[in-house]
Amino acid sequence: MDENDFIADCQTRLGLDLLSGTWTGVVVWTLRHGPLRPGEMQEKIGGISHKVLTETLRRLERNGLVTRRRYAEAPPRVEYGLTGPGRGLIEPLSALGRWTERYADEVLDAQDRTLSDR
Amino acid sequence: MDENDFIADCQTRLGLDLLSGTWTGVVVWTLRHGPLRPGEMQEKIGGISHKVLTETLRRLERNGLVTRRRYAEAPPRVEYGLTGPGRGLIEPLSALGRWTERYADEVLDAQDRTLSDR
Repeated sequence: MDENDFIADCQTRLGLDLLSGTWTGVVVWTLRHGPLRPGEMQEKIGGISHKVLTETLRRLERNGLVTRRRYAEAPPRVEYGLTGPGRGLIEPLSALGRWTERYADEVLDAQDRTLSDR
Repeated sequence: MDENDFIADCQTRLGLDLLSGTWTGVVVWTLRHGPLRPGEMQEKIGGISHKVLTETLRRLERNGLVTRRRYAEAPPRVEYGLTGPGRGLIEPLSALGRWTERYADEVLDAQDRTLSDR
């Protein structure tokens, strides 16, 4: 990221936009070890509906972060995997994970203080 | 970030949730060199309304990522700066920026292909 301060029109925002949406980062992270079937992803993630998972995967596919492969088996098997750009997101997501491990308690305390001030 | 696959209930999602919202990451990034007045931030960012900037800063303050300081001058001066947890977000945001520099073209191409398929 360069030091350009005029951020709004800058490509840098693309990454933030792509990761916005509650499940986007989670779904990318789930695929870090290799392709998975939607049912396997749903099990690993927990708490995501089939509909929301499908919508999230479609959006990731449109953005070229995930590919869908259909295997001509009976019953047909569908798997999703990360593309090169998708795999590239694992590093920023890991950095965010390290941040959370270190600061989650402070953030949760701040949120609690705000609530008790009301 | 550990290898726990059961991500939905995991603290790791906190970071993603905090950065969701179009302007959140941009506002944190703008403060990386030190405190700024709202007007200065608006100028640096470009394209953000005073209302949206104020809302974003309030949310960041509630989450303990940003502090507000009011100086008893005439006219009173207000500055916002990053807290420790807020400064900690600069590294993940930089990683995301490096990702964008490398992959933005591929993502934009994928988006174009999707549009031309319609």
